[in-house]
Amino acid sequence: MAKYYIGIDLGGTFIKGGIVNENGEIIVSDKTPTEVEKGDKGVAANIAKLANALLESQGLTTNDVEGLGIGSPGMIDSNEGNVVYANNLGWENFRICDELSRLLGGIKVKIGNDANVAALGEVKFGAARNYNSAVMITLGTGVGGGIVIDGKLVEGNMGAGAELGHIVIVRGGEQCSCGRRGCFEAYSSATALIRETKCAMVAHPDSSMWEIGSLDAVNGKTVFDYAPVDPYAKEVLDSYIEHLACGLVNYANIFRPEVILLGGGVCAQGDNLIVPLQKLVDKEIYAGDKGPRVPILIAELENSAGLLGAAALLM
Amino acid sequence: MAKYYIGIDLGGTFIKGGIVNENGEIIVSDKTPTEVEKGDKGVAANIAKLANALLESQGLTTNDVEGLGIGSPGMIDSNEGNVVYANNLGWENFRICDELSRLLGGIKVKIGNDANVAALGEVKFGAARNYNSAVMITLGTGVGGGIVIDGKLVEGNMGAGAELGHIVIVRGGEQCSCGRRGCFEAYSSATALIRETKCAMVAHPDSSMWEIGSLDAVNGKTVFDYAPVDPYAKEVLDSYIEHLACGLVNYANIFRPEVILLGGGVCAQGDNLIVPLQKLVDKEIYAGDKGPRVPILIAELENSAGLLGAAALLM
Repeated sequence: MAKYYIGIDLGGTFIKGGIVNENGEIIVSDKTPTEVEKGDKGVAANIAKLANALLESQGLTTNDVEGLGIGSPGMIDSNEGNVVYANNLGWENFRICDELSRLLGGIKVKIGNDANVAALGEVKFGAARNYNSAVMITLGTGVGGGIVIDGKLVEGNMGAGAELGHIVIVRGGEQCSCGRRGCFEAYSSATALIRETKCAMVAHPDSSMWEIGSLDAVNGKTVFDYAPVDPYAKEVLDSYIEHLACGLVNYANIFRPEVILLGGGVCAQGDNLIVPLQKLVDKEIYAGDKGPRVPILIAELENSAGLLGAAALLM
Repeated sequence: MAKYYIGIDLGGTFIKGGIVNENGEIIVSDKTPTEVEKGDKGVAANIAKLANALLESQGLTTNDVEGLGIGSPGMIDSNEGNVVYANNLGWENFRICDELSRLLGGIKVKIGNDANVAALGEVKFGAARNYNSAVMITLGTGVGGGIVIDGKLVEGNMGAGAELGHIVIVRGGEQCSCGRRGCFEAYSSATALIRETKCAMVAHPDSSMWEIGSLDAVNGKTVFDYAPVDPYAKEVLDSYIEHLACGLVNYANIFRPEVILLGGGVCAQGDNLIVPLQKLVDKEIYAGDKGPRVPILIAELENSAGLLGAAALLM
């Protein structure tokens, strides 16, 4: 008989939920407003309501599922089922797993940080499904990530680890949001790429990139579009890829994972990003080709990574 | 009844071995020349001979022990019991566990990289014995380390991970032995500290450090001795501690371990090293005091870490 799991992707605006089978197929999914203003227990009640509605839609009850998993923003102590601190939910020390278990007839409930849970989703059912160990790096407004070793998340004490954007790679370099200077995030986020693109345009009024109209039109795609024809764009792109490679080689040397996964909007560039990046990683990794190669893959689950990863917390 | 384990610390010159009980007490220990020139099987025979002698000395046989663990230099695939590559033994792909099990009446044999195994020893029986998760950094000629999560080693694919000295913290900085520039090792090893001390002396003929006589007399203690009276020594020491803190905060943000352990000769400086280091780590760690603190402790097992950690591979 098939096994079913409820996956919940908890966000500041919406709660997304789904019923997932052991093969990572989403049988049904739906979403409901989070209603943060109702407080922690109010949001838990909304999660329970969504879970019950999903079950009913399939003629199932809580007895028919293995449990419910949640990916949540914030610092999550997964051992204790506790949201230690979640800024954008306004929560501190909310034992959400106990509360949801109580609301859902004693069902088993597990939780993890959303970035970590998305990495787990990719390892169980996404781009790294043929592997057991992966480091996932998401290049967005910031740089986030998750670490999976032997199919299990490495979350750190009280879930405070895996802050993979916050390793200094350029001591004394660009200011980072975390207070330090020169973090990986300050060079490899989409925000950093856009910052450097704008700087190059300002410094070079003759850059073809000005064809886009104004600095406001710059996005993470701009330098990729213009690198083939504009030396200033190429310079920004080369530097971006070199810094990104620097951080990835650091992670390759620390974890020597079976694969590194990249997520986030910049990955839409596909081979234009991955091919030069892989070349640098292969060249700079510790002990060169004496150790196993670390392939760089693009994450593929996109919006469903959170939901599938949450379900995978119970597998 | 007490449980017994054989621990082996395999080096290029000597094989050290001991019988250890489940409390990490060394019942008996001894050593024998490695005799690398006899080749992989010859060295394995020497290990088996030492193990048998240790057992006999206590009136025990292979039936009385839970197994034998080895800490070995090189890249070790612990899952396969294989020494993938060990430069200073001259070995490639030697399935040492199978060979030793055959020589020792089918006994269970496990192996790990020596730096990793020493970290495991410290977590099971040393400075981190009250913790389950620790990152250990050894400040020697180079910078090595080990990662223990939930009481188990994180070794990476084919044992090629945990190269903790080889993360770039200063892009384009000092040349590292691994080929990259600006690695943690190039700033935090005893070698780096001695290099910077000599540079400061050469740059400042008025430095009190010249009291030691010549550059050849410089060691890892010099700047600690002179920092209270010589501004040049203090500058070198402050910079050393800042770079060391930079790398430790990186590891704190990645793993948020329960503790960070420091090993190596520089640690003999005790509080002169740890107090300013801890202050910087507390200040720079991600999210400040919102997350759990990461105390920095000095490793305490010294030469027996390898032997105890090797035994702990079976616990």
